[in-house]
Amino acid sequence: MTSTLTPTTNPHWIGAAQAIAAADSILIVTHLHPDGDAIGSLLGLGNALRSLDPSKRIDLAVDEGVPSFLNFLTGVDTVQPVLTEGAWDLMISVDASDEARTGLVGAYGRAHSPVVINLDHHISNTMFGNIHLVIPTAVSATEVIFDLLDSMQLTIPSEVAIPLLTGLVTDTLGFRTSNTVPRTLEIAMRLMQAGASLREITARTLESMEYNAFNLWKQVFPSVILEDGVISAVVRLSDLAAVGATDPTDSGLSSFLAKINEAQVAIVFKETLEGQTSISMRAKYGYDVAGLALSLGGGGHKQAAGATLDAPIDQVRAQVIPLLKAIANGTP
Amino acid sequence: MTSTLTPTTNPHWIGAAQAIAAADSILIVTHLHPDGDAIGSLLGLGNALRSLDPSKRIDLAVDEGVPSFLNFLTGVDTVQPVLTEGAWDLMISVDASDEARTGLVGAYGRAHSPVVINLDHHISNTMFGNIHLVIPTAVSATEVIFDLLDSMQLTIPSEVAIPLLTGLVTDTLGFRTSNTVPRTLEIAMRLMQAGASLREITARTLESMEYNAFNLWKQVFPSVILEDGVISAVVRLSDLAAVGATDPTDSGLSSFLAKINEAQVAIVFKETLEGQTSISMRAKYGYDVAGLALSLGGGGHKQAAGATLDAPIDQVRAQVIPLLKAIANGTP
Repeated sequence: MTSTLTPTTNPHWIGAAQAIAAADSILIVTHLHPDGDAIGSLLGLGNALRSLDPSKRIDLAVDEGVPSFLNFLTGVDTVQPVLTEGAWDLMISVDASDEARTGLVGAYGRAHSPVVINLDHHISNTMFGNIHLVIPTAVSATEVIFDLLDSMQLTIPSEVAIPLLTGLVTDTLGFRTSNTVPRTLEIAMRLMQAGASLREITARTLESMEYNAFNLWKQVFPSVILEDGVISAVVRLSDLAAVGATDPTDSGLSSFLAKINEAQVAIVFKETLEGQTSISMRAKYGYDVAGLALSLGGGGHKQAAGATLDAPIDQVRAQVIPLLKAIANGTP
Repeated sequence: MTSTLTPTTNPHWIGAAQAIAAADSILIVTHLHPDGDAIGSLLGLGNALRSLDPSKRIDLAVDEGVPSFLNFLTGVDTVQPVLTEGAWDLMISVDASDEARTGLVGAYGRAHSPVVINLDHHISNTMFGNIHLVIPTAVSATEVIFDLLDSMQLTIPSEVAIPLLTGLVTDTLGFRTSNTVPRTLEIAMRLMQAGASLREITARTLESMEYNAFNLWKQVFPSVILEDGVISAVVRLSDLAAVGATDPTDSGLSSFLAKINEAQVAIVFKETLEGQTSISMRAKYGYDVAGLALSLGGGGHKQAAGATLDAPIDQVRAQVIPLLKAIANGTP
């Protein structure tokens, strides 16, 4: 794995800066179904390279384009959803842990670029490409880009600071994930000083929910039960049908239920199209649902874990609720 | 109003430090119905003064004690809910904008302390007491305490850093309010470096909702309508009765509805016990409901405003919804 040496002493950082300087044309791609960090990285790096040397050709692409909630970022109109022609001196993949995740535009770009920089923060990165800027301790890919720009001693204009802060904010859920460290806040502070509005970014990205997901919550709220510190909800296939939902996403219903003060743990039971039951569990700080998920063939962390069981939903409820009650009433 | 000069040049900071140094016994109080900033200020300052000089007597008090979600803070067990005896060289009121807000313990303390320091960040502070550390640009009272300790050149131990960061996090809703500035993040960074876990504090304070409020949401979700970018809900007295709610708090229902991507503005109509109708409005970033609230006899900010109208709820809906649709469909 690439070490987390400081940029100026890490040969990959120097190699990346040299490859960027030498290239007259650069294609930047990111991962399929892009989130705030994917698009923030794409536009943060793209806008920085365009501002650094307007004579270079900088192309940006992601299959199916940019989700509408990120339309406030400068440069969104330059992102191509399909690539059918062109060739580049350099391709840079941002926030993608493997080649397949870069989609059709990534496959086209690799076939038409002699050099590929792989810039990412996922510990699962497969180390594809020629130059690796993979920093698992970074909370977002935009943090890696911030460090890269810092190592190139670039001044960060606001159209770069805004997408970079967007990645930092979305991947940490607004500085609430456990990997948020003092340096995360230091970088956020510097990006604010460079012209990014933290208020606008949090409002546009974190305070967001699909109306379809709201309708599913409305549909299943009558199933919610609070008993002995365990709050639970049930999502049946008939509920999805009732609200016209095509996929079983519940938009964080278990996380929402875990906020309720009188509950120590929350669980959502969902019927799957394959006749199985998936469970999504959340625990208050001081409680732990990882072990239970593991014992049921699933996995996760202390505060958020899940599993899929090969049994009908009511049978799974009867089996799991007593086990959760024991966790809720154990010593925190 | 007290100026926001730097601590070392502001005579009130020097006066406060001198009064603290001269006092052998100090009572600290805060405001009624204490929130995270009130208790964070009480314990942050209390723990700091105890650690600075263990020979001083430091008493902490707030009417009815500390809310249970803040029980994780060191020193909670030393907070007195009632004062019936004692006298002090100095009383310090933290996060209270006027004397009445300090409750019975504040009244007792003022009657039994020759000097009162008024430490706060509310612009509405009445400037009661003898020494004023009132800094309206501070996002929380704990920020003022941080600056006071800094001016006294104290090293901040973790049992002080944790309550101070709690106030900063709760009053900014996790760095999401519009008064959050780069320095807010710098202070948060320094408190993390001093041993405060941002993850634990956000989990214990922000990810929190009363089960009664959840039940009210469940009760009124069937009334939710999304039309032309306006999402609305109706809370009738019969809904409050149905869930056994004694006060009409909706725990941020309008803020929740404003998250929905397909809505530009959200409104909650509530019947009051007095036969009036209160409205609570929220706008997406780029939209503005302050003017409408003002024209209806209320007030607020662009993104959050409200009013109380002397008319039945259905009449208010018929009047206000078309005005909101015009806002939702105007140029953002």
